[in-house]
Amino acid sequence: MDRLKVYILGATGLVGQRYVQLLAKHPWFEIVGLAASEKNAGKTLAQTGWVLEEPPPPHIAEMKIERLDVEKIPRVDFVFSALPSEVAAKVEPQLATRGHMVLSNASNMRMDPDVPLVVPEINPEDVSLLERQRVERGWSGGVVKKPNCTTTILNLPLKPILDEWGIERIHVVTMQALSGAGYSGVPSVAIVDNLIPYIRGEEEKVAAETKKILKTDFEIYVTTTRVPILDGHTEVVYVDTRKDFDPTAVADALAKFKGLPQELKLPTAPERPIEVRPQIDRPQPRLDRWAGGGMAVVVGRIRKLAPRKLAFVVLGHNTVRGAAGNSILTAELLVKMR
Amino acid sequence: MDRLKVYILGATGLVGQRYVQLLAKHPWFEIVGLAASEKNAGKTLAQTGWVLEEPPPPHIAEMKIERLDVEKIPRVDFVFSALPSEVAAKVEPQLATRGHMVLSNASNMRMDPDVPLVVPEINPEDVSLLERQRVERGWSGGVVKKPNCTTTILNLPLKPILDEWGIERIHVVTMQALSGAGYSGVPSVAIVDNLIPYIRGEEEKVAAETKKILKTDFEIYVTTTRVPILDGHTEVVYVDTRKDFDPTAVADALAKFKGLPQELKLPTAPERPIEVRPQIDRPQPRLDRWAGGGMAVVVGRIRKLAPRKLAFVVLGHNTVRGAAGNSILTAELLVKMR
Amino acid sequence: MDRLKVYILGATGLVGQRYVQLLAKHPWFEIVGLAASEKNAGKTLAQTGWVLEEPPPPHIAEMKIERLDVEKIPRVDFVFSALPSEVAAKVEPQLATRGHMVLSNASNMRMDPDVPLVVPEINPEDVSLLERQRVERGWSGGVVKKPNCTTTILNLPLKPILDEWGIERIHVVTMQALSGAGYSGVPSVAIVDNLIPYIRGEEEKVAAETKKILKTDFEIYVTTTRVPILDGHTEVVYVDTRKDFDPTAVADALAKFKGLPQELKLPTAPERPIEVRPQIDRPQPRLDRWAGGGMAVVVGRIRKLAPRKLAFVVLGHNTVRGAAGNSILTAELLVKMR
Amino acid sequence: MDRLKVYILGATGLVGQRYVQLLAKHPWFEIVGLAASEKNAGKTLAQTGWVLEEPPPPHIAEMKIERLDVEKIPRVDFVFSALPSEVAAKVEPQLATRGHMVLSNASNMRMDPDVPLVVPEINPEDVSLLERQRVERGWSGGVVKKPNCTTTILNLPLKPILDEWGIERIHVVTMQALSGAGYSGVPSVAIVDNLIPYIRGEEEKVAAETKKILKTDFEIYVTTTRVPILDGHTEVVYVDTRKDFDPTAVADALAKFKGLPQELKLPTAPERPIEVRPQIDRPQPRLDRWAGGGMAVVVGRIRKLAPRKLAFVVLGHNTVRGAAGNSILTAELLVKMR
Repeated sequence: MDRLKVYILGATGLVGQRYVQLLAKHPWFEIVGLAASEKNAGKTLAQTGWVLEEPPPPHIAEMKIERLDVEKIPRVDFVFSALPSEVAAKVEPQLATRGHMVLSNASNMRMDPDVPLVVPEINPEDVSLLERQRVERGWSGGVVKKPNCTTTILNLPLKPILDEWGIERIHVVTMQALSGAGYSGVPSVAIVDNLIPYIRGEEEKVAAETKKILKTDFEIYVTTTRVPILDGHTEVVYVDTRKDFDPTAVADALAKFKGLPQELKLPTAPERPIEVRPQIDRPQPRLDRWAGGGMAVVVGRIRKLAPRKLAFVVLGHNTVRGAAGNSILTAELLVKMR
Repeated sequence: MDRLKVYILGATGLVGQRYVQLLAKHPWFEIVGLAASEKNAGKTLAQTGWVLEEPPPPHIAEMKIERLDVEKIPRVDFVFSALPSEVAAKVEPQLATRGHMVLSNASNMRMDPDVPLVVPEINPEDVSLLERQRVERGWSGGVVKKPNCTTTILNLPLKPILDEWGIERIHVVTMQALSGAGYSGVPSVAIVDNLIPYIRGEEEKVAAETKKILKTDFEIYVTTTRVPILDGHTEVVYVDTRKDFDPTAVADALAKFKGLPQELKLPTAPERPIEVRPQIDRPQPRLDRWAGGGMAVVVGRIRKLAPRKLAFVVLGHNTVRGAAGNSILTAELLVKMR
Repeated sequence: MDRLKVYILGATGLVGQRYVQLLAKHPWFEIVGLAASEKNAGKTLAQTGWVLEEPPPPHIAEMKIERLDVEKIPRVDFVFSALPSEVAAKVEPQLATRGHMVLSNASNMRMDPDVPLVVPEINPEDVSLLERQRVERGWSGGVVKKPNCTTTILNLPLKPILDEWGIERIHVVTMQALSGAGYSGVPSVAIVDNLIPYIRGEEEKVAAETKKILKTDFEIYVTTTRVPILDGHTEVVYVDTRKDFDPTAVADALAKFKGLPQELKLPTAPERPIEVRPQIDRPQPRLDRWAGGGMAVVVGRIRKLAPRKLAFVVLGHNTVRGAAGNSILTAELLVKMR
Repeated sequence: MDRLKVYILGATGLVGQRYVQLLAKHPWFEIVGLAASEKNAGKTLAQTGWVLEEPPPPHIAEMKIERLDVEKIPRVDFVFSALPSEVAAKVEPQLATRGHMVLSNASNMRMDPDVPLVVPEINPEDVSLLERQRVERGWSGGVVKKPNCTTTILNLPLKPILDEWGIERIHVVTMQALSGAGYSGVPSVAIVDNLIPYIRGEEEKVAAETKKILKTDFEIYVTTTRVPILDGHTEVVYVDTRKDFDPTAVADALAKFKGLPQELKLPTAPERPIEVRPQIDRPQPRLDRWAGGGMAVVVGRIRKLAPRKLAFVVLGHNTVRGAAGNSILTAELLVKMR
């Protein structure tokens, strides 16, 4: 097929760069434009300070960054938005009004009942909310949101546990990577030889979004912290299940879990969305964050602490599965469901 | 009074160096000897690789390290032991048989019913177990243990909560410093840009020791992790209380908590064993680990998540309050209780 | 004597906080006011985000930050300025015109021939330039600058070498701490598991300032880099001397070096401005940066590589000796020279 | 062609794991055996603690580690040795006597006149020393050494400069990665928030080996330091050239430099052995260490400081180009030169 045209908003930030990295080698999609704020407009992408471990391909590196202007964004198949929420809140509805299909990372509108908040392996059916969105908002395009990165990484292993054993409550403590705060989010002098036991707004998002994605209402207690690690959010999870479980069966259910993206063999879908590590000291961010090309979450330390009391540790790449990769996978899903 | 004589076993390791640092300027105690393994015997302390931020005073730096030999340890008031458990298991009983009073950091014997496992602000009365120990073991000396570092830091804030509101169960996740594993414990290539979600034996110790120290039997679920931080263990704690609580009252109870060491004005006792930080992003290891000279634990993020569901974060200096400092405070208690 | 009144400009940045920390316990000086930018004006110091390892004393922590306004700065003995250069360029001359004696960290005016650029142990006589400054600029006050942090740390060991053996040329490579870039200077994602081999403007400053301070014109080749370390600049220095040397004599000359501050026993003067470490793997930033209360530089690895070819490593605390501490020491000098 | 059989000694260390990683996907070579010390013998590779970012392919992960035993090593085309020097000194000559062609990373024998010390782009002709080695030592096999990692990374950019402008002397300061010291080489508590300005034996090796590889005798002054970075050695180099130069011409000569491996299109040869970065703040270890698959060195900050005074910064991946990759490239060269 002809390659589908995509446009990236906020292309110079950490998530924007991941979009570029993943889309530059995508078999279906072709980047036709990059936009960012005034500061970087007019520069080539290479001139804006690329910070990922792998440089962009030359033809992309030389693309000119455009100043974000809703009216100038060409007709494309998908607009990927890595805009900050306050900008997104203004721009994304304008784009949807003009007929654009926006895949957005920004946290605004996530909890709106007519906005799909999608982890493609968990709730692909929620893209059908786009119908309602068009009707209710009078948009010819639409907006699909990816969840908060911590939410996505948490919800993947929760899904098969919920389906098989039920969940009464969870206690979660996260150790989140620096890249989750954006390029200038955490000054180095604040975090060398240190951690920060608080991330603004994060705990509320994880609780609310989990309920929307998993369509259930169990108790959720979350504490989120920032640790001196570049990429990869680690989450320690205690689950009170409804039915008693055998920990080997849990490991098995997680390892075997598949969703619609795997069935449809979408290009960004990891073969196994959840990889289970048998080693007692895993997952570890530096060793496991690139599992499944950054699209798998890695689970370890699955333990039965008491009847109906499960514990495990889950890790995922926060800017791939937790951000750009999840939105790209969702776009692939939309292609197949058209 | 004349200064009391003390001797340090395992003086060249990280905890041994903390003992030296704290005892070198102690108003009651005088270091009269240092012993370590064969490798360092014969060297001066300065030649063995001092790694703390503050060098030892010259007269201590020039002390010769002796090869550990039970028979050659002189008559002293206290022997502080930072020996590894497998060595301690052999040496400490021999010392107690010879009449030495040993304050030990090693994990062996901690759960023996006749061995005091003491956090001086919480269970000072347990030093009376020394009587039973002498009778049952026929020792003229004795062995007092300090708890695992994570346990001590956790138990300090739990104590006033237990006393006032009761505890049904706790879920704990720790983020522990590198120094807790000893000088060679964690290779740098294992932990730069990484964390390790497992510490051998740690979770079992925290659960068992907490029950012994607090003399109660609530449910304890613990996951311990290692993070790239030099000093200071951080613990996120969820407490299901028996009675409902007001979070301000909890903060107040923690901030006002005092124990026998404060009453007795022991030299190593911090004025407030628990410091409560009002800032939403505290405690942080690098900023808070030296509170109360490293002897106070710092609590923040006290939250009421639901009726009878409390959450907080506690931090303590693992080699001061969690190790050497706690044993020195216990020795001071023994002096006053003689 | 009555304590002299001092006022701090830019009190909320990293260097400003060092000023507060060092002046809060100063025997001669008393902080009477703190000013910062609009953003922090009206808050107490404690509310502005204190990030040093030791909290400020309560009476200082509760001081209100004033909005920087030249006309409202009261009559004081010294104004310590940690303002950014572009603000300083405007404000400091206004203050000097109004009669204030300003001790400034900002890089503007450093190379002006009538501006003292002072390391008190090296060129205390240059404070006499204040006379010329008053005459030429018509100021009733004055401005004294401290050199760039890297320059000060480098120049201290160069001084006795220059005096005794002469210097033909030096090659320098620095490994500089994060705090040198200010609180938001280096984002954490830019520096974790990384270094940056360039610091804007730094190499030029080191070369030019060294010539002014040491009043000589040897060849200087400098490369400055940023490394993931909180505090403490390390510099590897190759010196081509004019006369041949014995490395033991060099070590000796450095260790014995003293200046006017030591003679005058100024309160901030370290007993030995240069500490020489015999261990082959020193100086190290974390272990040595607090030598002499942060006011001594530490030298190690003194080697003779060939006739008249000397190498050594020097380390100093960049925000103490390299910034706030050097200016405070200069103020003490001014008190004594009045 | 049939794949050539290779065997890896010391397969469980950091360099051994790089050998496995690079050889597992090599188009010409097939790993037929892995040996390590007693401690790991009998385990599968997966059980011995793999620490690289990318796991080994399953059929390799499941290979059994053999106990190192010279007599049991099968007939293979190449033996890659990542043994520690003291073991290598004993084992490698035994292997060569038995007819094995050993590509060795160990530092013993490097300076022996009949031992090739090869950077394939620089001195491929030196593999002819194997003839002399066979004659003089009576070996039916042979030993080829790769240089010290810092030497290789330094020598690549020096080669075209030497050829075009001549070199009178160099001053070098290195900032070396943790992996260069092996898995347990640098304890984390020694290096967090710190650097160590000394690496045992390193400075002597760089000086001596450079003279052997480049077959010249200019003055070399080297200071080597360890910094808290996982992979990638950075070196700041000042070169006094014999002829004057234009810095653009130097950049050009470096960027165009090619050697025999590029001519022969050897599979591990990077297209450009030296990549020149125009950005003023490069090279940076985390962003540049994987240039050319880890086989290119990256040069930046090329500056003319004075007539015949050149400065630049070079970075290379110490366990790829600096170790395993260089030896594999040498083996490829041997295949082509047979």
